[in-house]
Amino acid sequence: MTGTIDRRSLVAGAAALTLGAPALAQPRRKLGYAIVGLGGYAGRILPEFANCSTSRVTALVSGDRAKATEWARKYGVPESGIYDYTTFDRIADNKDVDIVYVILPNSMHAEYTIRAAKAGKHVMCEKPMAVSAAECEQMIAACARANRKLMIGYRSRFQPHNMEAIRLARSGAAGKIRYVRSEHGFVMRDPSVWRLDRARSGGGSLMDIGIYALQAARYMTGEEPVAVSATESTDRRDPRFRTVEDLLAWTMEFPSGAMAGCQTMYSASQNRIFLAGTEGRIELEPATGYEGQKMWTGKNGRDREVTPPPGPRSTQFAGQLDHLSECILADREPIVSGKEGLQDLRIIEAIYRSAREGRRVTL
Amino acid sequence: MTGTIDRRSLVAGAAALTLGAPALAQPRRKLGYAIVGLGGYAGRILPEFANCSTSRVTALVSGDRAKATEWARKYGVPESGIYDYTTFDRIADNKDVDIVYVILPNSMHAEYTIRAAKAGKHVMCEKPMAVSAAECEQMIAACARANRKLMIGYRSRFQPHNMEAIRLARSGAAGKIRYVRSEHGFVMRDPSVWRLDRARSGGGSLMDIGIYALQAARYMTGEEPVAVSATESTDRRDPRFRTVEDLLAWTMEFPSGAMAGCQTMYSASQNRIFLAGTEGRIELEPATGYEGQKMWTGKNGRDREVTPPPGPRSTQFAGQLDHLSECILADREPIVSGKEGLQDLRIIEAIYRSAREGRRVTL
Repeated sequence: MTGTIDRRSLVAGAAALTLGAPALAQPRRKLGYAIVGLGGYAGRILPEFANCSTSRVTALVSGDRAKATEWARKYGVPESGIYDYTTFDRIADNKDVDIVYVILPNSMHAEYTIRAAKAGKHVMCEKPMAVSAAECEQMIAACARANRKLMIGYRSRFQPHNMEAIRLARSGAAGKIRYVRSEHGFVMRDPSVWRLDRARSGGGSLMDIGIYALQAARYMTGEEPVAVSATESTDRRDPRFRTVEDLLAWTMEFPSGAMAGCQTMYSASQNRIFLAGTEGRIELEPATGYEGQKMWTGKNGRDREVTPPPGPRSTQFAGQLDHLSECILADREPIVSGKEGLQDLRIIEAIYRSAREGRRVTL
Repeated sequence: MTGTIDRRSLVAGAAALTLGAPALAQPRRKLGYAIVGLGGYAGRILPEFANCSTSRVTALVSGDRAKATEWARKYGVPESGIYDYTTFDRIADNKDVDIVYVILPNSMHAEYTIRAAKAGKHVMCEKPMAVSAAECEQMIAACARANRKLMIGYRSRFQPHNMEAIRLARSGAAGKIRYVRSEHGFVMRDPSVWRLDRARSGGGSLMDIGIYALQAARYMTGEEPVAVSATESTDRRDPRFRTVEDLLAWTMEFPSGAMAGCQTMYSASQNRIFLAGTEGRIELEPATGYEGQKMWTGKNGRDREVTPPPGPRSTQFAGQLDHLSECILADREPIVSGKEGLQDLRIIEAIYRSAREGRRVTL
């Protein structure tokens, strides 16, 4: 197993993708992931390698040696695959690491993506890609210079209900798309989490859960917004919201005339995508959670529940992990590359500006 | 039966209201309605008098004598109760008419409300109350001068699901209210209807069906908005939308920090009210149609379907008609008086201004 790709495995991988062959005569090469940041979400990702076809975990990066050692044993990572933040750059010498998956607080995404690219590794970076569009541009440039792939962890794009909703929307099943509504929020209870500290998060509910609403409006319409109008409601006396926003509602105007109405907050729970077209509607609720998605189509209500065809992998997490591996093996761009993350940050910056200035902001 | 109210019937009526007495020894006095404008919606209202306890139809006003004669026979209105628009003011002499119900194109609401008040009649006026806030103020002043009641035809306030949703929201069943979403639209197919002619309608989807979304945001929060931010999407090449808007999306900010996200359009169908509080949610769909309302409460989804207690009358239409009669009999203000209609028009004007100027408009 090497860090470089030989032509045979590339061709075999591509053939498997193209033909959907259930098994290859030779076991398919699995690319090795280094997980950077062993927080709660990493704890959800690590068991998912067992569901992957072309991905495995080969390294862990953490400031907590005891935790890294424990998780390394649990997930079969060798002692030599354990790094901390001071030794991270030596990962360049680890030929079992093809991809660095950055699951750190948002403010650290840019730094670790750029260091990973300099170490010659491909990068999976959690959403939001960074805390500013300028950082996203630096990350894209760094990966391009190193000739490495960069993908953002938009797992919903590998979730069967969302994939089927996109397919239905594009097929014209709802007629001409006029409106997409997406609301994403939950009750953030612990005031001490890094997500409530602007220095580390870059923003509140929008940077965390609201980005799903933004993404949904883009992938359901298949269009890029030309303007946003946003309104914020945050109780600054609430200790959770000293530096970041609670609630943001915003509209986005698309070139076709379609409109999106989105909302996010940290003070009540919702998770929904709704599309209204001239001929009908598509609705998902919950839409983008870790599991339990439901979906309906109809004329005026939830007339028919839709069970989508199974996704490419048994879970959205495995689908996401394997997608980057397959893109590397076949030398293709991920469907959610750095450009996608950059576009969301550009829009996020426009949403914040619109709310701050009380005016429509063009993109 | 006279057009004036003697003390006995007033007291008897009030007692019946208070005690919910199923029947009085004497038949309860029914106030007489004149229906002005025999269009489609009048055709829906007229059969509803059969469901009323304190209201009956005693006159019809139409430019179409044949239709008026036919409908008069059908609904038991005497020949002497038929008027046209030139003879309308003679209704002052008709002691069987207590209330004039204006179901005309929006641009005629002010004129006929004021003429009805001058004729000494109470007024029920369809929504939107008028085409401008200034007209609403004139209508309120005219009815006040004549010492007559003025009510706006907000039938959903008499619809059991909506009444129960309001009660639940106020009772704190969903916790602190953070967000109300309401979407109201339908596909307007006929380009020749008066609703698509700004001179008669005063505006498009917002004046017609969007006002339900606006009303819902106000009665679900129980608050008055302090600012609106609106965005419009209208294809002006579409022959239906030469003078009025198709789609409007807007947010409203309330003093408590609650936010409303509303939308209306003439190019796709939706009819929904959704409330998110810190402890749960309330949802209605369809919310404000003529019939078929459904309602749910829950934590993250439609966990429990709610069957509301029955309303004061067998239908929302009868509830609306009888409410004004009862308010006249008991000398109370209707829950949806002219002030309510004026407030909606003030907000509607702010919504149009916000969309036009691309900025947040304070109220």
